[in-house]
Amino acid sequence: MRRYRKQDFPTHNVRRFLEPGPIVLVSSAHKDQTNIMTMGWHMVLEFSPALIGCLISGGNHSFDLIRDSKQCVVNIPTVDIAETVVKIGNTSGRYIDKFAEFGLTPKPGTHVRAPLIDECYASFECTLADAGWVNKYNMFVFEVVKAHVATSPKVPKTIHYRGDGEFMISGEETARFRKLFRPGML
Amino acid sequence: MRRYRKQDFPTHNVRRFLEPGPIVLVSSAHKDQTNIMTMGWHMVLEFSPALIGCLISGGNHSFDLIRDSKQCVVNIPTVDIAETVVKIGNTSGRYIDKFAEFGLTPKPGTHVRAPLIDECYASFECTLADAGWVNKYNMFVFEVVKAHVATSPKVPKTIHYRGDGEFMISGEETARFRKLFRPGML
Repeated sequence: MRRYRKQDFPTHNVRRFLEPGPIVLVSSAHKDQTNIMTMGWHMVLEFSPALIGCLISGGNHSFDLIRDSKQCVVNIPTVDIAETVVKIGNTSGRYIDKFAEFGLTPKPGTHVRAPLIDECYASFECTLADAGWVNKYNMFVFEVVKAHVATSPKVPKTIHYRGDGEFMISGEETARFRKLFRPGML
Repeated sequence: MRRYRKQDFPTHNVRRFLEPGPIVLVSSAHKDQTNIMTMGWHMVLEFSPALIGCLISGGNHSFDLIRDSKQCVVNIPTVDIAETVVKIGNTSGRYIDKFAEFGLTPKPGTHVRAPLIDECYASFECTLADAGWVNKYNMFVFEVVKAHVATSPKVPKTIHYRGDGEFMISGEETARFRKLFRPGML
């Protein structure tokens, strides 16, 4: 599997990758355990600090690791590892080591103990910023404290869940309207 | 502009349209005013009741209409009206009537006073379910109480904001992995 060469990326711009709603892989670590989960329900909440809201169901093994360690990495996979993404979402870290099982490469981050997934196009190191809605909605608010984004290709082929086991693949087709935007609205 | 023929749709399945992260148009009404805003920051929070989280900045004219009326309609536009979507996002309802200005057709809903936009592929009637984070994050939690979805085409060409005035257009390309899902995980 391809590993992406990455560069630092401004955290206030991680919305560029999260706004189109890609499926993401959330990696975590607590004590002697690591895990990966597939997540589809997330949103951008603020530019700076770079806040994102993530829904992580209490039934997931990752829920405990993330709640207890107060950190995670949000990784953005591309279509070439779509099958692996699906398998990660249909197995539990209670029974298997997902990095080993799926041949993924954990890479140390700089701000959190949770490992980056080197086969993903982008990795955002996150710390828990607000646990106020964890009990109510299983909603974690994370601050992206460090962002790593691949240098090429410029536009990643992310995958977007449509239900029934089908994913829309982010198309090459682009609609450009830069001139219609007011300054500050881009 | 094309108007879509729609049918009722189960509210617990509106995630099929919101998970891929499309740009949406939020229509609202309060007293003698209606408005439309373009929104990119939203997520699914729960299947049933069908809850969605939406970030609506306090600077928007729609913010007051929605907070005061406690309702809105989340409409899903397609690429054929992308230019209109951008113009809606770069003007303010304080100065213009956006339905009139952009030639869009308001259509009465069944559960809320806010109008549906008939040129959109889908329209979800929403009532405010939780205002607890409106002051903290400008985050509204809505319950989708009625959903209208076009009967064709089966897969809408939604638009997804990539920044810098560019939108990714939801591709025809589909990756299928139905057989890899555990029952209940689709």
